[in-house]
Amino acid sequence: MKLEKLVGDRFKERPTDCVIDSHALMIRGGYMKQVANGIFSMYMPLRKITQKIERIIREEMDALGGQEVLFPVMLPASLWQESGRYDNINHELLRFTDRNDTPFVLGMTHEEAAVHLVREYGQTYAKYPFMIYQIQTKFRDEARSRGGLIRVREFTMKDAYSFHTSQEDLEKYYDECHKAYERICARVGVPEVVSVASDSGMMGGKVAHEFMFLTPVGEDTLVICEKCNYRANIEAAENIVKNEPTQESGQLNLVQTPNQKTIEEVAAFLGTSQDKCCKAVVYQRKADNSTIIVFMRGDLELQETKLSNHVGCDIYPATLTEESGLCAGYLGPMGLDKNVTVLFDASLKGVNNLVCGANKDAYHYTGFDIARDLGDVEYYDFAKVSEGGICPKCGVEGITISRGIEVGNIFQLGTKYTESMNMQYTDSEGKEHFPIMGCYGIGVGRLAASICEAHHNDYGPIWPMSVAPWQVHLCALKANDPQVAEIANALYKDLQNAGVEVIFDDRQVSPGFMFSDADLLGVPVRVVVSPKNCKDNMVEVSKRDKSLSEKVPVEAAVEYVKNLVQSELEKFLP
Amino acid sequence: MKLEKLVGDRFKERPTDCVIDSHALMIRGGYMKQVANGIFSMYMPLRKITQKIERIIREEMDALGGQEVLFPVMLPASLWQESGRYDNINHELLRFTDRNDTPFVLGMTHEEAAVHLVREYGQTYAKYPFMIYQIQTKFRDEARSRGGLIRVREFTMKDAYSFHTSQEDLEKYYDECHKAYERICARVGVPEVVSVASDSGMMGGKVAHEFMFLTPVGEDTLVICEKCNYRANIEAAENIVKNEPTQESGQLNLVQTPNQKTIEEVAAFLGTSQDKCCKAVVYQRKADNSTIIVFMRGDLELQETKLSNHVGCDIYPATLTEESGLCAGYLGPMGLDKNVTVLFDASLKGVNNLVCGANKDAYHYTGFDIARDLGDVEYYDFAKVSEGGICPKCGVEGITISRGIEVGNIFQLGTKYTESMNMQYTDSEGKEHFPIMGCYGIGVGRLAASICEAHHNDYGPIWPMSVAPWQVHLCALKANDPQVAEIANALYKDLQNAGVEVIFDDRQVSPGFMFSDADLLGVPVRVVVSPKNCKDNMVEVSKRDKSLSEKVPVEAAVEYVKNLVQSELEKFLP
Repeated sequence: MKLEKLVGDRFKERPTDCVIDSHALMIRGGYMKQVANGIFSMYMPLRKITQKIERIIREEMDALGGQEVLFPVMLPASLWQESGRYDNINHELLRFTDRNDTPFVLGMTHEEAAVHLVREYGQTYAKYPFMIYQIQTKFRDEARSRGGLIRVREFTMKDAYSFHTSQEDLEKYYDECHKAYERICARVGVPEVVSVASDSGMMGGKVAHEFMFLTPVGEDTLVICEKCNYRANIEAAENIVKNEPTQESGQLNLVQTPNQKTIEEVAAFLGTSQDKCCKAVVYQRKADNSTIIVFMRGDLELQETKLSNHVGCDIYPATLTEESGLCAGYLGPMGLDKNVTVLFDASLKGVNNLVCGANKDAYHYTGFDIARDLGDVEYYDFAKVSEGGICPKCGVEGITISRGIEVGNIFQLGTKYTESMNMQYTDSEGKEHFPIMGCYGIGVGRLAASICEAHHNDYGPIWPMSVAPWQVHLCALKANDPQVAEIANALYKDLQNAGVEVIFDDRQVSPGFMFSDADLLGVPVRVVVSPKNCKDNMVEVSKRDKSLSEKVPVEAAVEYVKNLVQSELEKFLP
Repeated sequence: MKLEKLVGDRFKERPTDCVIDSHALMIRGGYMKQVANGIFSMYMPLRKITQKIERIIREEMDALGGQEVLFPVMLPASLWQESGRYDNINHELLRFTDRNDTPFVLGMTHEEAAVHLVREYGQTYAKYPFMIYQIQTKFRDEARSRGGLIRVREFTMKDAYSFHTSQEDLEKYYDECHKAYERICARVGVPEVVSVASDSGMMGGKVAHEFMFLTPVGEDTLVICEKCNYRANIEAAENIVKNEPTQESGQLNLVQTPNQKTIEEVAAFLGTSQDKCCKAVVYQRKADNSTIIVFMRGDLELQETKLSNHVGCDIYPATLTEESGLCAGYLGPMGLDKNVTVLFDASLKGVNNLVCGANKDAYHYTGFDIARDLGDVEYYDFAKVSEGGICPKCGVEGITISRGIEVGNIFQLGTKYTESMNMQYTDSEGKEHFPIMGCYGIGVGRLAASICEAHHNDYGPIWPMSVAPWQVHLCALKANDPQVAEIANALYKDLQNAGVEVIFDDRQVSPGFMFSDADLLGVPVRVVVSPKNCKDNMVEVSKRDKSLSEKVPVEAAVEYVKNLVQSELEKFLP
């Protein structure tokens, strides 16, 4: 390929709307162009990168015994109604009607389509286990798309679905798939991706892992314990608190706290610390706007996902109106006889001498002791883990909070979809069961962006050989010099004949211009033919990551470069 | 791959809702499953076939200098408003709004997206010509999806867009692309696909060709002249009539024709032939419901597409109400002073002594002579070509009418999109111009269905080696016989090691059951290991198309089969 003919513009200036590097470099390097918010067209270099990523994913899925299929993008709403997700998912699900007013959705994931495809096939136990997968365009109508390919509305995803007759079999397969994902990350050049325990969200099921590329620009928050290697998405990490009663419980006293509404104000006013306060956090259910009040220790924050999972639907922070009868700023667990759901966070278990609201304007209680004053209540984990906290696995203090980009995820789904969609098989004794499912996703574009995040400098990406748009970038400096032209043209032809993927720049431009374009394309091996080196019968071979810069005799160049490409490629073999 | 593990059911009974063979066989063979009207999921065998077709298309597009890109499926309506197609296309275009009520469409073709992608890149003449293409899911909300993959609502298409600075350059490229399409058809096993001149429909532009697989089950009607090799879609074929005035023009007479409303009735009542009648065909514009009356010879039929192209919008057959003031059944060109568009078909040019309506209930005229009675009128071609008619190219009578499936199309678009979307380049003298575009589509699924239509028998498809889901179908008859198992297992391993794609059936089922499954999968080469042949140290090698059936010594089998596959593959090389 001649660079002169490559469609797409490259430029120096970082676009002002690009917050993260991979986004900026992919725009500056002519990799993609935004068509609408969170929706991009890809130019050839990015398409080549994603195709190489897809090939590696395919190889690993096939090695797991996966069968590649293709589900439709446009799915009848009726399928999603069967599983119940048509109503449970909010605006993220793109809905529309066809010419006959039949409702459809754009697939954001394909559990329903997978069950639909194999519902008849999987009627007898002898067919199990099996796994089907596709690589297909998907849609998620994100409220805030951002970061180039990190959070988009249309994306290419590999999604796989496995079906089993026992939980043990699923777990075995799940582990295999976990390993395959590690191999995929290593083979595309981001071995540093780690798996973390995750919340299974709208997918259903209990056990789930996300594959995270750790980076400060990531949008997921992770809890990591360096001591025991515990890793989890903060949404799924249990918050551990040590609750010890202080002294004896004092007397319950009603005290006036005029204009002291926030926890900070109340604690300061009453001369106590925030962790000795019982605060109220108020949410409403999206479905019916009904109110939920969570009481928790004043120094902690609520983790919305945990609450949403507990109540089983979407929620949003409440706006307290006069009609609610709730006394904003002075809410407390005693005498709260309104028609609301009241929940208690585990941080309150076994503590005493607390400050809490008195459900009366400008009044709080001191000396509150839940066990004494309320009797038996149930405690759940609703609080967010914080930096330095206690590891839920090894129990040692000193948790760290990191950020990451989720490039893949795996879920043990259980029978959520097979039950709701009535897929059954007959076992060897003629009894009917619901198959147990696993599902396994990887975002191709996010993986490409993560590779770029992991491997770049100010001048452009440094693509790993396994996914690079080309393997060799051949530059002819002063291509109007006959000797340069002859050597460069011969190299271009001979390298291609040797099976090497070459992009050839023989434009009459300055070396600086030429090299800055090459940096933006990030091809791992560069070969420069210049008048000066030609006189010595040499060409210059270097690596984009600066780990090599050699002069090689012209006659030896093809063999040298071919071997260099080959040895780079071998680093990424399974 | 072991057949035992292949997901998908195969069965004998032809589904009652399948009208055409490829549809029936793809359902019976476990190739696909319907998800909604005109929307299918693909199982592994069909996915493999489409991937092989896609690979061949890619090779041919790359050989034309094409650059593979990827456009979004979800396109902002604003892009389609720029080109004007948002309003011009009817229900076929799927429209929806996102969470912010911004209108979007699902891409049915990507001219707008292509111009959007290269609008900045192509600002100077030196960048031209260039071609970009993608292979992507597309949507067309067909009113009547039918025939399995023949007419669907969601499909995979390769669409390519070329950009030029002169009509000559476009034409040169167009011819190259035409040849590439012929190579693609040959390489996927349907060399019999022919190109026909076509109407450019909603695409804009003048010159266009469709690539048609001729079959009685096709839904397009084609006009073919065996004498001069003229081929055109009936929508684009000019209807040629020889109009000779009969004798002298008689006198114009108003005659009573009570209850004689159809042309058949009127001609019979007045004792003349239908071709001596001037009939009225009435349509309405979809945009504003305004009326169009076309007068044409009574023995001819109107070709809607021609009329629609002439008036420049969608049309539908009119319903004449009393309010229209039009006298249904008695419409004629004289005294028709209503506010309607009146058009004349070329079949009326120069004829006389006609019968025509008198715009008065139960009255016709005889002796009508347009030139004498109406003066100068303009004539256009609105009539449908009929079997046996005159070839518009060589002028010889005897046209044949055939049917075909459109598997691809190529269009010379001109500047319709670059003008409407304001894409310009500067020439060497600094002057600005709109680039000239071509576009080139191929339906991957339709091509797969056409290959199946071309190559099948009652028992299943007979896939050409270049697109077959596997190359060899290995059957172990009585796999519980130790000798059979040993030989078959070794063959399975050795063939795969030799690079041959094998599907291996070692199920404990009857030979009949095994072979009928093999027929449905349509793999071109079959190798049967049976107890009887094992005794003679032989295996049986045959071809699915029955052109070969050989016994081969076990030791020679791998080499023999490998060579057979290779020689079959070579038939489809470029």
